Amino acid sequence: MRDFLPADKARRERVLAVIRERYRAHGFDEIETPVMEEYSRLHAGIGGDNEKLSFSILKRGMDAEGIRAAADDPAALADLGLRYDLTVPLARFYATNRAQLPTVFRAIQMAPVWRAERPQKGRYRQFLQCDIDIIGDASARAEAELMTASLDVLDALGLEGGTIRVNDRRVLDAMLDVFGFAPDERPGVLITIDKLDKIGASGVVAELRDRGATPEAADAVAAYLERPRPDDARFDDAGIRAALPDGIPDEVIAHLVALGETVAAARGADAPLVFDPFLVRGMGYYTGTIFELAHPSVDYSLGGGGRYDGMIGRFLGQDVPAVGFSIGFERIVELLQDAVDTGERAVVLVHDRDVALEDLLRVKAELVADGARVRLEQRTKNLKALLERASADGYTSFATVNAGTTGASLEIKPLG
Amino acid sequence: MRDFLPADKARRERVLAVIRERYRAHGFDEIETPVMEEYSRLHAGIGGDNEKLSFSILKRGMDAEGIRAAADDPAALADLGLRYDLTVPLARFYATNRAQLPTVFRAIQMAPVWRAERPQKGRYRQFLQCDIDIIGDASARAEAELMTASLDVLDALGLEGGTIRVNDRRVLDAMLDVFGFAPDERPGVLITIDKLDKIGASGVVAELRDRGATPEAADAVAAYLERPRPDDARFDDAGIRAALPDGIPDEVIAHLVALGETVAAARGADAPLVFDPFLVRGMGYYTGTIFELAHPSVDYSLGGGGRYDGMIGRFLGQDVPAVGFSIGFERIVELLQDAVDTGERAVVLVHDRDVALEDLLRVKAELVADGARVRLEQRTKNLKALLERASADGYTSFATVNAGTTGASLEIKPLG
Repeated sequence: MRDFLPADKARRERVLAVIRERYRAHGFDEIETPVMEEYSRLHAGIGGDNEKLSFSILKRGMDAEGIRAAADDPAALADLGLRYDLTVPLARFYATNRAQLPTVFRAIQMAPVWRAERPQKGRYRQFLQCDIDIIGDASARAEAELMTASLDVLDALGLEGGTIRVNDRRVLDAMLDVFGFAPDERPGVLITIDKLDKIGASGVVAELRDRGATPEAADAVAAYLERPRPDDARFDDAGIRAALPDGIPDEVIAHLVALGETVAAARGADAPLVFDPFLVRGMGYYTGTIFELAHPSVDYSLGGGGRYDGMIGRFLGQDVPAVGFSIGFERIVELLQDAVDTGERAVVLVHDRDVALEDLLRVKAELVADGARVRLEQRTKNLKALLERASADGYTSFATVNAGTTGASLEIKPLG
Repeated sequence: MRDFLPADKARRERVLAVIRERYRAHGFDEIETPVMEEYSRLHAGIGGDNEKLSFSILKRGMDAEGIRAAADDPAALADLGLRYDLTVPLARFYATNRAQLPTVFRAIQMAPVWRAERPQKGRYRQFLQCDIDIIGDASARAEAELMTASLDVLDALGLEGGTIRVNDRRVLDAMLDVFGFAPDERPGVLITIDKLDKIGASGVVAELRDRGATPEAADAVAAYLERPRPDDARFDDAGIRAALPDGIPDEVIAHLVALGETVAAARGADAPLVFDPFLVRGMGYYTGTIFELAHPSVDYSLGGGGRYDGMIGRFLGQDVPAVGFSIGFERIVELLQDAVDTGERAVVLVHDRDVALEDLLRVKAELVADGARVRLEQRTKNLKALLERASADGYTSFATVNAGTTGASLEIKPLG
């Protein structure tokens, strides 16, 4: 877990403000849920491996007897837990508040989640997730709105040129069927295919054989992975069909094609979508389109999401289509490490110890009223170090206040 | 704990943005600490009664033996806890990061805290605190900066006319001494005096007698409370002395007088300060000035704070002066319930089911690019209800999209 010092915190808040403003412009509404959810809800099998990483809240007022009784059932010690994602809370929120929400509900959530990870570089036990979700729309419009809005966020952050890798869980299911895998082999096979970027085609085929795939199925995957692929594959009916074996249902392909056309129309240009038939994404709850946001400046994804039409029903008792996207806030903040200029007018007022407090505060108040951000600093022996620190904190100019200085006589000089 | 729906969340974020912007203008820097702190730190005796209300995090990986061993020591089940205020985390943050902070450090924290309160109206188990603190400045300038900035926040929120009730713990200590209470009686006597607004002068005197105060001490308090008070008491040397018995140290009065003059200079007008020698404030850690923000529209305080010069030393091993103010965010949001107009251009696009997705998204994209906030709504039988909900969510106009509508042919009408 991290402390955020002023420069870090300011950068995070600026990025959050851009994300919030752009997503709001695209018609998404921000909501907030409590950080704690019921223990049973956090351990209902929806959160996958994250459930095991969840922090639990000790029941209040447990007595010695109750604690002893919980020795063989540690879950009895906890009634609440910290959320490990924003999707389970969203589904609970929707079930609780549905009557007060629009028919098609577009949600923004920007909030911390917690996972009891072993400490390692780039993994945090508390980190911020920024999710948008559309609940109540089964059409490709929903995916297109998520993608258009998220590409707009990247543009607004100065990260133009984002692309989106797209697949559909139903494509994967149909392909594995065509290749000759049995339905109960699918989850394991998907875990192996998900490693393609890391272990390559030969690694995937070898691991499938180790997993006990039939020679025919392993050979079919090998042949598929070795097929010639055009460099200029387009995200349209022909391009998508060319990337797939025969036997993929037409309606799945039609959904993808409609998605591509809709994003293209919204962007007023070619849709920056890339069809990737072996894109898997980890979570078990995806049921349709899945996608990841990529940017040429980095070789990891800047976010991902997908359709999860089955989950809301688990809370509501009635199926409602849903699709979500989580933009990689922590990764984006790291990428924008140096972009701190906000054009803000920020002045350090350096004063001697003997300046009267009321004169000092009067000069400060005049500058603040005039629209500046103002920090007071008592002069130290090492003025250079003082000004360097202020500059690191985003201050852009300074002035000296002596006895008798007034707003009118203040001489403001640029910093650094 | 509460879910925040779109209109509520938007109102909260707008208030937060104003507070953040104004406090930043006054030279405060926002920081963030993890929501969890070490259990031992949250139970070190600094948090007063709040320590008992703290939520604890169950240790990960406890086995049956460990749980049984904890039966007689429930604290052994927890290694972390959720913070119950922002002051303990700030002191820990300052001790951890001091080398990277300015000599006089002005912090903003706007973040949730948790207390396991019994549910009741207006009490929440998760609520937001907005604190500003100045660490490293023992002069009245620090209090004056907190007060000036906070009055400015109220003004910016449209709550002009705020006033601040001010006292000093040293005034209380000296008064109780003059009245004849022994030092070990003080904490109990302060608890009684703190009830003056609720139980009145006669109630206070009666409770002091019940507590075992000597007749002389109780009579001295009664005489003091019954003294004639001028209606136009000023916050200056004469006004403050007139409100006090003899025997209050001169340097305490001088600190208060300097504070009044500094706030007056910064506001360019009379300081809106009221000296209240029986203002107590609950927390045990205050050592000097204490104050509460009041507004004529409500009979409860909109925030409070004080000087706590002893606390940082408990974490750092070296005393550092500190003073803080916590603005009553939740109360202010309730007060601003109806003020939701942001002048934002927000358009609902109502469309029929048969409009092509790409036409719909193209029209939306054009409006978004033009600076509007845009929500798509499929036409329902009850169009009026649909538009009323959008209006409640802050949308101000609407337009109808049919097959063939373009941005140029769109007719935007005001909502409601």
